[in-house]
Amino acid sequence: MVALSPSRRLRRTPFSQGVEAAGVKAYTVYNHMLLPTVFRSVQEDYHHLKSAVQVWDVSCERQIELRGPDASRLMQMLTPRDLSAMLPGQCYYVPIVDETGGMLNDPVALKVAEDRWWISIADSDLLFWVKGLAYGYRLDVLVDEPDISPLGVQGPRADDLVAAVFGDAIRNIKFFRFGWFNFEGTSMAVARSGYSKQGGFEIYCDGSHNGMPLWNALMEAGKALDVHAGCPNLIERIEGGLLSFGNDMTRENTPHEAGLGRFCSTRTAIGCVGRDALLRVAKEGPTQQIRPIAIEGVIPACEGPWPLLAGDKRVGQVTSAAASPDYKTNVAIGMVRMTHWDAGTPLHVQTPDGLRDAVVQENFWN
Amino acid sequence: MVALSPSRRLRRTPFSQGVEAAGVKAYTVYNHMLLPTVFRSVQEDYHHLKSAVQVWDVSCERQIELRGPDASRLMQMLTPRDLSAMLPGQCYYVPIVDETGGMLNDPVALKVAEDRWWISIADSDLLFWVKGLAYGYRLDVLVDEPDISPLGVQGPRADDLVAAVFGDAIRNIKFFRFGWFNFEGTSMAVARSGYSKQGGFEIYCDGSHNGMPLWNALMEAGKALDVHAGCPNLIERIEGGLLSFGNDMTRENTPHEAGLGRFCSTRTAIGCVGRDALLRVAKEGPTQQIRPIAIEGVIPACEGPWPLLAGDKRVGQVTSAAASPDYKTNVAIGMVRMTHWDAGTPLHVQTPDGLRDAVVQENFWN
Repeated sequence: MVALSPSRRLRRTPFSQGVEAAGVKAYTVYNHMLLPTVFRSVQEDYHHLKSAVQVWDVSCERQIELRGPDASRLMQMLTPRDLSAMLPGQCYYVPIVDETGGMLNDPVALKVAEDRWWISIADSDLLFWVKGLAYGYRLDVLVDEPDISPLGVQGPRADDLVAAVFGDAIRNIKFFRFGWFNFEGTSMAVARSGYSKQGGFEIYCDGSHNGMPLWNALMEAGKALDVHAGCPNLIERIEGGLLSFGNDMTRENTPHEAGLGRFCSTRTAIGCVGRDALLRVAKEGPTQQIRPIAIEGVIPACEGPWPLLAGDKRVGQVTSAAASPDYKTNVAIGMVRMTHWDAGTPLHVQTPDGLRDAVVQENFWN
Repeated sequence: MVALSPSRRLRRTPFSQGVEAAGVKAYTVYNHMLLPTVFRSVQEDYHHLKSAVQVWDVSCERQIELRGPDASRLMQMLTPRDLSAMLPGQCYYVPIVDETGGMLNDPVALKVAEDRWWISIADSDLLFWVKGLAYGYRLDVLVDEPDISPLGVQGPRADDLVAAVFGDAIRNIKFFRFGWFNFEGTSMAVARSGYSKQGGFEIYCDGSHNGMPLWNALMEAGKALDVHAGCPNLIERIEGGLLSFGNDMTRENTPHEAGLGRFCSTRTAIGCVGRDALLRVAKEGPTQQIRPIAIEGVIPACEGPWPLLAGDKRVGQVTSAAASPDYKTNVAIGMVRMTHWDAGTPLHVQTPDGLRDAVVQENFWN
């Protein structure tokens, strides 16, 4: 791997000091911010995530706050998911689409109040789209990026760790719900959510000055639980079929192509700017779609789309791939044309190191 | 420096193969794309840039294309610079502002035709803002990111190198103008512009498949000119006062704070969405502004804003800094409050390694 040159533009986070003290070995850049990718090794981090508990600096999931009389109208303009029954305290995974139905982001939206939302974003400046719409439609809404930085706690022992810092009431938080909990005098949203399949929470740290005290409190309380600094793990997230915007789908793709049709209620999502464009694809289905792919042999890091071939014909591409210690194969995510997307279909993947055998899977692994 | 983890999300460019063969040592991430930062060393690259000629992969200056009857109206909505007299074939440096006058980007706009523009962007997803406005205002315009990747040729011998590949007519291109030139059957825009003070061109490589042939043609033609792969150089760009969006100014700042008032004609920029917000600041001036700052002693890499102090009082911040071999000081860019922005004002800078003496300069160095 090459080095990453530091600059202010690649923003540090309220937890960077803790991340560095924990020995971060590599970063990626996400929403103009540093996101750790490796601590001990991707494999060691993977095994530990599945067996203990980790604290993740996911500040890069920046928040967009919508506040005001038109906040809910604006939120529904952004997504084909029907938000009309959503209650304060709920989190929804919401594909965000433009007027052509192309995906602009795939964030988690938190309904804070009837007139207040947070959007916890994936890697694109969604703020610009939201502001542009709000301005163009003259909506009565404030749109901004508040000083709120999510800290993830993921792994089978996450409940014990978060309970040790925030109290046992956090055990009652249901999946994709959040509540308000006190940390040293500041009320913070704590949600049962996160970018792994191991269970856990995201703490919406309110105020950068609370960053290191919160980090340290979790690390201290977690000593008996074998807590370690961690980060979204490439292998685990592919095993679990957790998509990555910019990797597995882009503005070129509809939510239906990304396999997110179940999060779209295009007919009833009245006001969604992409509704017209998506009505037909919602009815007829996409012609290519995300699939789990198992790849044989030794593969390099996936730095760009790898063509998926059926004979000489290109029928899709692989966009994320990694060797899985638990499943003894290379787990991968690909976009496959409908002619070849059935489970069991044998294909070839063109990696930079040569062709590899691959098979379309029925389900993700985890 | 820590390592950068590769992924598809950090897009490779049409020139990445050449960049790697040339021995790139470090990258940054810019518009979700790889931007080289070091080849031999920052110092060696610096001296070479000032004495010979370099080829720069600046594909990360992604293009936004506006096309259609409302393209010029939309372009003027984006910027307080008056575009009414601009002709096809001209490039303008255009601060882009939101409805509050906050900067969203500082790109170079190319007027391709009366109904067609390219915006060669700095590091933010400006496309989202432009699309949001176009949609909100129901403008008759296509907005997209075409497959066009700028390749910079910078340094005192740039004319000779570009002439060797595109013909001697390129010598007649005036500063911030562009013309159309043939490369292996494809017409490409070649502009006299670039992110250094050493002179040179930006070739708007049309079509990813033309990337490596163009790279190789320049490298081959430049052998006698001591051509090397290069990249925007931290030291040289600070010496020259070339600002970096996200480093030296953000959405928090107006163009006037960024010292870009000369590129604003707020009174006559009719249609600019930030016009109302900027009228007062245009009249009364900003209360803080970008200044060149000389810093004494040894300093680390600038990874975040360093407070500028007058006694105990914070009066600004340094956002870019590097040791200059030619000027025998640390050259820096800072934002300073009007109470302390006069040239010659002595200040202190709080670096992670301790306080350093600093002096506000009259002019940038280069």
